[in-house]
Amino acid sequence: MKTLKVGMLGAGTVGSQIARLLLDNKADLASRAGAELELVKVAVKNIKTKRNSIASTLLTDDATSVVNDPDIDLIIEVMGGISPAKELILAALKNGKSVVTANKALLAKDGATLYEAAAKANVDLYYEAAVAGAIPILRPLRESLVGDHVIRIMGIVNGTTNYILTKMDEEGTAFKDALKQAQDLGFAEADPTADVEGIDAADKAAILAGLAFHSRVTDKDVYREGISKITAADVKVAKAMEMVIKLLAITELTDAGEISVRVHPALISRNHPLAAVRESFNAVFVEAKSAGQMMFYGRGAGGEPTASAVLGDLVAVARHRVSGGVGPKESDYASLSIAAIGATKTRYLIRLNVADKPGVLESVAHVFAAHSVSIQTVRQSGAGDKAELIVMTHHSSESALSATVKDLSKLSAVSDVASVLRVEGAI
Amino acid sequence: MKTLKVGMLGAGTVGSQIARLLLDNKADLASRAGAELELVKVAVKNIKTKRNSIASTLLTDDATSVVNDPDIDLIIEVMGGISPAKELILAALKNGKSVVTANKALLAKDGATLYEAAAKANVDLYYEAAVAGAIPILRPLRESLVGDHVIRIMGIVNGTTNYILTKMDEEGTAFKDALKQAQDLGFAEADPTADVEGIDAADKAAILAGLAFHSRVTDKDVYREGISKITAADVKVAKAMEMVIKLLAITELTDAGEISVRVHPALISRNHPLAAVRESFNAVFVEAKSAGQMMFYGRGAGGEPTASAVLGDLVAVARHRVSGGVGPKESDYASLSIAAIGATKTRYLIRLNVADKPGVLESVAHVFAAHSVSIQTVRQSGAGDKAELIVMTHHSSESALSATVKDLSKLSAVSDVASVLRVEGAI
Repeated sequence: MKTLKVGMLGAGTVGSQIARLLLDNKADLASRAGAELELVKVAVKNIKTKRNSIASTLLTDDATSVVNDPDIDLIIEVMGGISPAKELILAALKNGKSVVTANKALLAKDGATLYEAAAKANVDLYYEAAVAGAIPILRPLRESLVGDHVIRIMGIVNGTTNYILTKMDEEGTAFKDALKQAQDLGFAEADPTADVEGIDAADKAAILAGLAFHSRVTDKDVYREGISKITAADVKVAKAMEMVIKLLAITELTDAGEISVRVHPALISRNHPLAAVRESFNAVFVEAKSAGQMMFYGRGAGGEPTASAVLGDLVAVARHRVSGGVGPKESDYASLSIAAIGATKTRYLIRLNVADKPGVLESVAHVFAAHSVSIQTVRQSGAGDKAELIVMTHHSSESALSATVKDLSKLSAVSDVASVLRVEGAI
Repeated sequence: MKTLKVGMLGAGTVGSQIARLLLDNKADLASRAGAELELVKVAVKNIKTKRNSIASTLLTDDATSVVNDPDIDLIIEVMGGISPAKELILAALKNGKSVVTANKALLAKDGATLYEAAAKANVDLYYEAAVAGAIPILRPLRESLVGDHVIRIMGIVNGTTNYILTKMDEEGTAFKDALKQAQDLGFAEADPTADVEGIDAADKAAILAGLAFHSRVTDKDVYREGISKITAADVKVAKAMEMVIKLLAITELTDAGEISVRVHPALISRNHPLAAVRESFNAVFVEAKSAGQMMFYGRGAGGEPTASAVLGDLVAVARHRVSGGVGPKESDYASLSIAAIGATKTRYLIRLNVADKPGVLESVAHVFAAHSVSIQTVRQSGAGDKAELIVMTHHSSESALSATVKDLSKLSAVSDVASVLRVEGAI
């Protein structure tokens, strides 16, 4: 049996699991790939650090030597970051090596350059692990649904924020307490910005949007709001309305045939399949014209789940080396443009602190009507100083809604616009 | 751009949707496949029947002429049944045509022969539509999870029975009324045997088991029980215990490293992701060693969803024609044996009609202990003539449980073993 030599860039949480599994599952992987997969070189920052699953003789701190090694057939990139990961991957591709990467940030920023280099060298670029960890979602999009038309994707693609929102929903915890708890348990990093502000989810949204709509979509195209402004009061109102707040990565086709791509917290009905996705689990809900509604659920992060996705890709690219062919190339023929956030249409839930006196509802309703924002339901809770109006709208554009909120805040009867939240999912 | 000629066998519900979508999405499919896909011949039983989506000039009642046509590159088989579908597919493969089929019965009975013919001719055999309709599940198993070890699959893979069980659960309907309702709505056929007795689900279980465990598994290997004996009383007890009854296709590795593959109704917790799969939806729950728990959810049947899966495969095999390579071949290297049903371990819920007098529980508990079946919980409901004992066991082998039930029915204190149901999913 042929042997394919594998070089790896990075040996952190994911890389060390990959190295271990390559050894533990050697015989199975060989049977499935049609070739032995031998890890021969691993680039790390510090070769002195002891790594249980990797023989020290494989370690090097010269990453360039890995991607330029003529004996190496396949490269796994799990170092993360933009540079030098990008230069190293491009060098590997140029040298005729197929590359498997989990680098969502790089793919979201400049996937096109990587794809072009892969196509030029006629080698593979696979990256299932970049979105939703162990959940097979990119291969289904790239291959299974390629005979269909995706209409919309809504994903819970960040485990940290889903953990925080689950605690807030189930235990009534305030955001900062839930964040602290997530940090203590290792679900959130010391600097939680990338997770909490939706930066990580936005990278994944860009990748999903590009694949779904056969167009180039980058991280800069993604409208983004995080969850740090979600309050216990928002969560309580959601519960009372049999809804739950989730941080969603959404991409959909607008009526004008443009791509809307955005990450923000949103209310969804407790009956929606995404509502049941708890703690650090991820799920991607896909609507396609012929296939209808689908959901893909599983572990979105963690060393071993992510390693599973990387190894699935590694077997695929190895099989291509053995029996010929390459996987799907970039599919950007549709070249759709990105919709402005103002043109995005969704429903909204607006909470207003109001004076509890006759005529308030009339003046509030007048502002909505003036901006052609149609109201679905209104309910008042509390009385006197604590009177609150909760308004749910029908579908409306972001720009009309913003203008409405601006005018509402000027009303003398409205003391405060307490919150504005989007409502997603079927009515 | 190159044109690939497509022949289709069958033009029923699925076939007519495929024909329509091939025309409607011509430009998109060409961009994605790298070649125009032109439907040139469709074999049907009666060429006189009018078909809206298919020009009558394409129709032929000579299926052999389609698979032997040297101009045809790709064959879609959606006629169903074992013969002549098998002979036609084998002829097509032998003639160097790649084949996309939705024929679960044939794949479950003799997939190995088809795979061998495809390998010999170095062409593709794809069949995503054969299990769970539009839900991408076979490609994830064949490709995404190929670097991992599947431990267990539990699937709701038959929409008819799931619709019936949903009605029984949500409306307290009796089995035969729910079946009648499903028939009236077109979810069940006039002769519902294949669905209701688990024959359809067993074919899918065999296919899933073979892919998951890299072994040959046929329909004959699958232990099978249908849902026709499930009563409204069973459903009521399930509800009281916060569980729901689903018809599950299960395949898992036993402690002895054999494949357990079975279809039967089972109780699962209402917290299990499969519990929320309602009406005619399908879902496949997969547990893998590294990836952990995953679920794939969507439409399991219907003309257009199934056509989506067929067209995804068609684009894949077309792409291989254009840019070289073939997809994964049969992976049966593990050659695991099939576990006897008696060796399968699961939990059980047993309902006994008993005399309401002292000592009953003791004599019942004695029978369980004598067969080393460990009891998790017992509860009594009713009193006098209507006293009922509900016993939940810990994991036990089917053979020990059967022996226990046999002895229980001999007890003077037990007037009747009302039902024995398996309990699946994590404890």
